[in-house]
Amino acid sequence: MYDILKTINSPEDVKKLNAQELEILAADIREALFNRLTKIGGHLAPNFGIVEAEIAMHYVFESPKDKFVFDVSHQSYPHKMLTGRKNGYIDDNCFKDDSGYTNPEESEHDLFNVGHTSTSVSLASGLAKARDMKGEKYNVIALIGDGSLSGGEAFEALDFAGSELHSNFIIIVNDNQQSIAEVHGGLYHNLTELRETKGKASNNFFKALGLDYIYEENGNDIQAMIKVLQKVKDIDHPIVVHINTQKGKGYKLAEENHEAWHWCMPFNRETGKSTISFPAESYTRLTAEYIINKVKQDKDFVMITPAMPMCAGLSDTAVRAQMGAQYVDTGITEEHAVAFASGIAKAGGKPLIVTNATFMQRTYDQISQDVCINNNPVTIVLNCCAFDSLTDVTHLGIFAISAFANIPNLVMLAPTSKDEYLNMLEWSVEQKEHPVMILMPGNMVTSRPADKDYGKINTFKVEQTGEKVAILALGDFYQRGEELANAIEKEFGFKPTLINPRFANGIDEAMLKDLEKNHQLVITLEDGVLDGGFGQKIATFYAAEPMKVKTYGLKKEFYDRYNPQELLFELGMTSEQIVADVKKLI
Amino acid sequence: MYDILKTINSPEDVKKLNAQELEILAADIREALFNRLTKIGGHLAPNFGIVEAEIAMHYVFESPKDKFVFDVSHQSYPHKMLTGRKNGYIDDNCFKDDSGYTNPEESEHDLFNVGHTSTSVSLASGLAKARDMKGEKYNVIALIGDGSLSGGEAFEALDFAGSELHSNFIIIVNDNQQSIAEVHGGLYHNLTELRETKGKASNNFFKALGLDYIYEENGNDIQAMIKVLQKVKDIDHPIVVHINTQKGKGYKLAEENHEAWHWCMPFNRETGKSTISFPAESYTRLTAEYIINKVKQDKDFVMITPAMPMCAGLSDTAVRAQMGAQYVDTGITEEHAVAFASGIAKAGGKPLIVTNATFMQRTYDQISQDVCINNNPVTIVLNCCAFDSLTDVTHLGIFAISAFANIPNLVMLAPTSKDEYLNMLEWSVEQKEHPVMILMPGNMVTSRPADKDYGKINTFKVEQTGEKVAILALGDFYQRGEELANAIEKEFGFKPTLINPRFANGIDEAMLKDLEKNHQLVITLEDGVLDGGFGQKIATFYAAEPMKVKTYGLKKEFYDRYNPQELLFELGMTSEQIVADVKKLI
Repeated sequence: MYDILKTINSPEDVKKLNAQELEILAADIREALFNRLTKIGGHLAPNFGIVEAEIAMHYVFESPKDKFVFDVSHQSYPHKMLTGRKNGYIDDNCFKDDSGYTNPEESEHDLFNVGHTSTSVSLASGLAKARDMKGEKYNVIALIGDGSLSGGEAFEALDFAGSELHSNFIIIVNDNQQSIAEVHGGLYHNLTELRETKGKASNNFFKALGLDYIYEENGNDIQAMIKVLQKVKDIDHPIVVHINTQKGKGYKLAEENHEAWHWCMPFNRETGKSTISFPAESYTRLTAEYIINKVKQDKDFVMITPAMPMCAGLSDTAVRAQMGAQYVDTGITEEHAVAFASGIAKAGGKPLIVTNATFMQRTYDQISQDVCINNNPVTIVLNCCAFDSLTDVTHLGIFAISAFANIPNLVMLAPTSKDEYLNMLEWSVEQKEHPVMILMPGNMVTSRPADKDYGKINTFKVEQTGEKVAILALGDFYQRGEELANAIEKEFGFKPTLINPRFANGIDEAMLKDLEKNHQLVITLEDGVLDGGFGQKIATFYAAEPMKVKTYGLKKEFYDRYNPQELLFELGMTSEQIVADVKKLI
Repeated sequence: MYDILKTINSPEDVKKLNAQELEILAADIREALFNRLTKIGGHLAPNFGIVEAEIAMHYVFESPKDKFVFDVSHQSYPHKMLTGRKNGYIDDNCFKDDSGYTNPEESEHDLFNVGHTSTSVSLASGLAKARDMKGEKYNVIALIGDGSLSGGEAFEALDFAGSELHSNFIIIVNDNQQSIAEVHGGLYHNLTELRETKGKASNNFFKALGLDYIYEENGNDIQAMIKVLQKVKDIDHPIVVHINTQKGKGYKLAEENHEAWHWCMPFNRETGKSTISFPAESYTRLTAEYIINKVKQDKDFVMITPAMPMCAGLSDTAVRAQMGAQYVDTGITEEHAVAFASGIAKAGGKPLIVTNATFMQRTYDQISQDVCINNNPVTIVLNCCAFDSLTDVTHLGIFAISAFANIPNLVMLAPTSKDEYLNMLEWSVEQKEHPVMILMPGNMVTSRPADKDYGKINTFKVEQTGEKVAILALGDFYQRGEELANAIEKEFGFKPTLINPRFANGIDEAMLKDLEKNHQLVITLEDGVLDGGFGQKIATFYAAEPMKVKTYGLKKEFYDRYNPQELLFELGMTSEQIVADVKKLI
């Protein structure tokens, strides 16, 4: 097992292998992928498809002297195994040593810590520029694919490289005919034409941007890949190497269903079934049910996702097909998705966008300018914004509030239960006055009575009337607020007030004023960084008043792969710790 | 004068004119442009070049039933004149009635309030989508040009339109061979090829994205434009109408120097000279001097701008040429510019990006992910972030702090004088530890001694030691802080403490703690919205302490074309008003 892979401690070792050994290495790498992915999950199909290309890259080029930039960097696992990190795949005790993305802290062969798409050409063009300024000589290679091409950042950089770079720059386009879900966008039709004509189609997108171009049909053939890369090595100008690969290659289930196997939880290799069980109910599934139902009822409603249907529970292609033109996957194009939705809302449609919170960061400007200045009623639902959702540094949802809360006209809602979430969704989709962002809860699904109408912006809700201490527990931290209220009552013998703010980016001035009558301490709890967030608005409201305020939330830091419960303890945010604080403050 | 233009009260009136009258109308429009622009300034060359096309658009289509989306919407002045708003151009008393961009509050013929580039195709595709969902029939037309094509949002939308839209959608590409400065990017080479071959070049960028395409050589010929637009009217699929126009047409000086006349201050028509005088010194000029000097001294230094060289005082093409490869205009590609800089920094270069504050909003994600997670030493200087700089709702610099201040690892500097600004610039460019954003002052240039080293992050500077009241006066509001300190001393007879925070997005905990000894009130002054900004961090620090804090800044609102001094008064921010507040608080 892993006979060849075990001998690979650096790319130098790859270069020593003969053709047959390289084939065994590819098989070893796939076995190692199985070992890690069946046990802890991760990006499967992208890595199974890129094994041969990355072996060839290390066979031909000289990393770290030559620089590789991976995009999406979730397709870098084979590269990691070839650069001293095989133990993260073959030794179960070492899984935690490696992140699921390139990471300069792990290895000098990784240039950037990057988990979003469409960044490689731009980052790599910077490396090439600095190399030329310094008069150095090395190859700079961007590997881009798996849907990444359609993002604006990639387009901007390809356009730039096509005319402004005049030295060595190699862009390997990994064409696996797939984004996360199916590909969308005219560019992918062009890639198809290019594949079908073995690179000879007229109207070559890359050539139109001024880039040199070469096509390699057999992207899963190590020798073919070595040959084409040797051809472009040390080239004196930018060139696109368009390679045809099979996403999921080597795992039959993944070859047959790219989308389901793009990313996986721990699973049984024979059956493909997940080995961990999920709760029957989840906010993602509730979202899907809402959308499917709404589509049937209302022809003006349109569901939009920038290539992340699973964030709305819409992984089933048959279900998507049933929605017809009322389901739009824009491809990996967050900026376009938001402006497109603004146009739809302007013309009387009811657009809903659902995606991952951090991917939405790409659209700060579109939300501000295209949507909020125009006050068009677009609804945006962010998934994975809970602090205990995704813990990779590149995918932290903890910045969702601070990133968007301070854009005028945007109404930001933080539901605390299934009922509140669904009512907020329906209210938002139906109203015509405000752009709305809803933070999808990451908690277990709970049910509590909730209002139907959220038209009175920034009105908080008192869930328990008490005295002395008021707890403002936002969104996903509402249940912690309940727990804290009980702990305070138990410790001090009085009932504190418990408030569900519901609105994450404004303040209910009348209610806050009212609290001054019989409260001396306000506690804010929020599931995100404090800086720029909810609690700071409350603290500022009372800043010149005698009311004490204690804000609880995360620090402004790029946390990485943390244990959420341990983090809360470190931050002094357990009920026990907060009760101890209260003891000092009242 | 304006004989024909005076008869135009709506697009209906344009349709009644014969060919000769249309020509006179074009001349009238140019006269009207002269009238407004010589007196109050605005976007000149883009509008002079698009007169005929917009006349033809209104002649052929039926706005507001048919929908026009303009991009950059600063090239919409002729359209405005043809849709009931001629008085904003021919009547000096009405100049203020019209903004410099499309504005739905002004007219039903304007769909979006939009001042940034590259948004039209996306917004318009949303209109087309909603039209189709509702089973309505009308033309949707996006007019895009003047450099807008290279922005990622435009690329994403063109790619989307090329495969996902299957109904009427007309994209007029106004090819005036110019961005704000000269064009950059492979796409513009393709446009040149297409012009030279009258649309017949192989590797047509638009066709590669799946879009139908038609070329019109004579974009400044009304009859030719009418003919081509009549051809595409009511078309049943997306098409690009590539038109060749002359930027600045009709004003010789602008025809000869597109960049200088892209946007103008009030000027003398005969001489082209500005009729208002500028101070000899400005922060923009100081920036230019710094850059020019640094380029000479340090071959690792590279100046990057996404098509906004004037923000760095680099309007002179000869000066730019002298900088050679150390000056990079990436075209209108903010996202790429930031990731490109991150790559340069990673490989040991010293990148400096300078642009307009609001345009940088496009890069929240790139600053967070591509730069700050990687902690690469990129320096970003934002121009026009002062509240009294640009007052159009689309160009407000008042969100600069709240947009970026809450991204971890980013050091945000707010200089208060020439010396501090230049020292901060030099420190930032030379250090290797932090990504840095510097808010270029918008005040008159002043000089005061300043530190050279800013390596102790988040250390505030006490500029006057006093008692009872501490004033934290950030960046451009430092001089107001000085004024306030004097007013307080005069009114109350004691000397307050005056602090120059210098760091806009962190707090000096030791100093704040120290203030508790002999101060009872902290006042924060900042040139931006309070929400998510500087003062809220200070208020939060003291929230559970007896120290009172009063934060002064702007509200979270989309202000539009306001009088800055009146706004300060409305917000209670004059020294007199603040002194009255202090009276109540101490």
